[in-house]
Amino acid sequence: MNVTVWNEFRHEKNDEAVKAVYPSGIHEAIADFLNEAGFATKTATLDEPEHGLTEDVLKQTDVLVWWGHMAHDEVSEEIVSRVHQRVLDGMGLIVLHSGHFSKIFKRLMGTSCDLKWREAGENERLWVVNPGHPIAEGIGETIELEHEEMYGEHFDIPVPDELIFLSWFKGGEVFRSGCVFHRGQGKIFYFRPGHETFPTYYQSDVQKVIINAAHYVAPSKRDKPVYGNAQPKESLS
Amino acid sequence: MNVTVWNEFRHEKNDEAVKAVYPSGIHEAIADFLNEAGFATKTATLDEPEHGLTEDVLKQTDVLVWWGHMAHDEVSEEIVSRVHQRVLDGMGLIVLHSGHFSKIFKRLMGTSCDLKWREAGENERLWVVNPGHPIAEGIGETIELEHEEMYGEHFDIPVPDELIFLSWFKGGEVFRSGCVFHRGQGKIFYFRPGHETFPTYYQSDVQKVIINAAHYVAPSKRDKPVYGNAQPKESLS
Amino acid sequence: MNVTVWNEFRHEKNDEAVKAVYPSGIHEAIADFLNEAGFATKTATLDEPEHGLTEDVLKQTDVLVWWGHMAHDEVSEEIVSRVHQRVLDGMGLIVLHSGHFSKIFKRLMGTSCDLKWREAGENERLWVVNPGHPIAEGIGETIELEHEEMYGEHFDIPVPDELIFLSWFKGGEVFRSGCVFHRGQGKIFYFRPGHETFPTYYQSDVQKVIINAAHYVAPSKRDKPVYGNAQPKESLS
Amino acid sequence: MNVTVWNEFRHEKNDEAVKAVYPSGIHEAIADFLNEAGFATKTATLDEPEHGLTEDVLKQTDVLVWWGHMAHDEVSEEIVSRVHQRVLDGMGLIVLHSGHFSKIFKRLMGTSCDLKWREAGENERLWVVNPGHPIAEGIGETIELEHEEMYGEHFDIPVPDELIFLSWFKGGEVFRSGCVFHRGQGKIFYFRPGHETFPTYYQSDVQKVIINAAHYVAPSKRDKPVYGNAQPKESLS
Repeated sequence: MNVTVWNEFRHEKNDEAVKAVYPSGIHEAIADFLNEAGFATKTATLDEPEHGLTEDVLKQTDVLVWWGHMAHDEVSEEIVSRVHQRVLDGMGLIVLHSGHFSKIFKRLMGTSCDLKWREAGENERLWVVNPGHPIAEGIGETIELEHEEMYGEHFDIPVPDELIFLSWFKGGEVFRSGCVFHRGQGKIFYFRPGHETFPTYYQSDVQKVIINAAHYVAPSKRDKPVYGNAQPKESLS
Repeated sequence: MNVTVWNEFRHEKNDEAVKAVYPSGIHEAIADFLNEAGFATKTATLDEPEHGLTEDVLKQTDVLVWWGHMAHDEVSEEIVSRVHQRVLDGMGLIVLHSGHFSKIFKRLMGTSCDLKWREAGENERLWVVNPGHPIAEGIGETIELEHEEMYGEHFDIPVPDELIFLSWFKGGEVFRSGCVFHRGQGKIFYFRPGHETFPTYYQSDVQKVIINAAHYVAPSKRDKPVYGNAQPKESLS
Repeated sequence: MNVTVWNEFRHEKNDEAVKAVYPSGIHEAIADFLNEAGFATKTATLDEPEHGLTEDVLKQTDVLVWWGHMAHDEVSEEIVSRVHQRVLDGMGLIVLHSGHFSKIFKRLMGTSCDLKWREAGENERLWVVNPGHPIAEGIGETIELEHEEMYGEHFDIPVPDELIFLSWFKGGEVFRSGCVFHRGQGKIFYFRPGHETFPTYYQSDVQKVIINAAHYVAPSKRDKPVYGNAQPKESLS
Repeated sequence: MNVTVWNEFRHEKNDEAVKAVYPSGIHEAIADFLNEAGFATKTATLDEPEHGLTEDVLKQTDVLVWWGHMAHDEVSEEIVSRVHQRVLDGMGLIVLHSGHFSKIFKRLMGTSCDLKWREAGENERLWVVNPGHPIAEGIGETIELEHEEMYGEHFDIPVPDELIFLSWFKGGEVFRSGCVFHRGQGKIFYFRPGHETFPTYYQSDVQKVIINAAHYVAPSKRDKPVYGNAQPKESLS
């Protein structure tokens, strides 16, 4: 299975605090544990030609992981349309943290994807609310994150097809932190944690969730549905 | 409650067969029964300035009904964005029949909204699959349509939040014909029947569904959620 | 519209602390504000004959509100079956707080309905996660309860058809606190708050939710679906 | 992975027409293709001691397949409770055809599970409505069954967590034919086809669906959630 990890890769170049946590970029940290988990993993970043997401790359990608934040606006509409089409055609998509405001996530959701936020480094606790779900396999009843950015409800997304994690924040907020959506033949998993100044993606249970999700949103092997004018399958007379 | 019925109003001008069925336009036929049901109903059409959907009109609209087909592409992006925002802010939206391919519906869904179709005038039978739902109130176990265009699965929409009707077609297809979606603070109802060459909107149980739906998708009275940077509600120390 | 408020009415007789909060019983406190809201409201309690839920009473009940805790086991199977059938036939049901462990709720859910709990009087904050839902109408972005019993995930219920409130607790837990379920022709609303030692049901926004819910789960007027052997609606030849 | 196929195994003994189709019983026909697909498959039938479903057998069963019809009432409450608990603890359950009226399915659903039916041997066509779902992998856009019993809506089940197939019947009915439900830690798949007088379970795409489903409802490896009284995870002062 081929996974491509996409990252805008800007914070890590411009901000010493971020560079200290993710010296090779968030994408490399994520690619490392996905590779170890047995996925054939590549990376792509905003400043590469076509943001690293050429037709060829996408065609060979089973699951795309997306991390973006400060440069959502720099992602070209053409590439967004290309990724959108690939998701509808079956490619899995894992949207992480601030990717909630990415063009691709907003286009797939049809809503503002807005939320409350606060950078206070408070602790976050994710509770499993769908205990039989494959994405929660091997996860305890909570995931404890010592320091994270807060995201709070209302999170302006469509009702998730499956809700797997709910977050508790010390400052008094809650959040739907692990959500599955079906769009076309594609499956999407949104996972909240992962602020650029915290070592969240080095934590083993966070990695486990992303690995589980990559398996879960993998494309199903089926011909694309046929649309358009259709002959009757039964006699109309 | 204020309802605005929007229609592209083209078939009825250009096609004698359609004019014969809806001489004043589909919008007037729909507005008639909504008026009778007690809604303050207005109409708007594609060829009016701003397609009849000025900021003022939308501001005063609780529920917008949408019928379009041959001229989806002529609806300006600006007006689509305006309607989109109003739906997210709470305005109800009822999308009828070929409106499945309207820009506003596709933007709200995030998918292609494609489907199978056939104009053979075969009979359609809608079955109620959510018998306690207010939109099915007063409806028998089926709605029988003697002649309709066929729409068949796969219908490329997100999983509906509520599924109320399933259609059977003589030619062998099925379709999810009555679907509720929440987007932002707004509620959307997609209802399949209503091809322009058939007198579907004069049928009393079809009218009843649209009347019920107008009540159901009416805005809830609440302040808009607050988004953005948030102070903690509890001490972080 | 006829509402019946059922209460086991034991704590209020046996426990001075509870009596101090609800001197006439929780059912009377709830009936009071429902009456004021315009519902024709009656009460019924465990120690009445047939627990106050005779065939006649149920037949005339549009929405049944249920509060129970220490005496779930004393509710007879026969009455549970009677209420169950009425819900499937369309009667609305609002299950409050510790009613999660009532026989009727467990039978309708098919799961254990178990959860975490703690009586520490900590504060609870309910967040609205479905901002356009009629049950949240008139409610701010949170409901703040100064002292409540904690209920925490995992809450062993089926996936709710609609999720409206999520609770945050000071001690670190979250909970799906406002859930709609469809069963048969009936609609069910589970609402978490309302421990017997706290004046929760005197709080106006809590009352507002229960009033909204009574409207929402009210029966739809439709004939019961026909089941069993069916003649074909189309020729089979 | 261990699969147990349970069958009441009565029609095949008493009815020559059924015996002609399934000479060794429906369970053996199903076990055959599951074995070939690589599952360690056993069978169990009603007339064995404890219906073949001892504590030991269930403990070692990852996925239980259930076919029953004429003898639902002979299944003991004790065994139903045992299976129910195992499902809540994570065992997958695939309920086939007339199993819709089994005690175990009704207990898990909380509804009557009633439906319309007709034994006319008409043709059935299942349409895939969730094209990216693993249970539909390798399946064309329809499954065509030349002769089947008709099951028609309204099917009195809770709203499925995932809806994968819709059936069309020549006689004019539709049906939600492939439904996933989560209950506790367990996953359940209901699949409509499989009347005892038709060779449905020998058809390769029907087999493919059941094989896919066995993978899909397999237990996730996680500790059981902890319920009951809970110490705070955060300071309450």
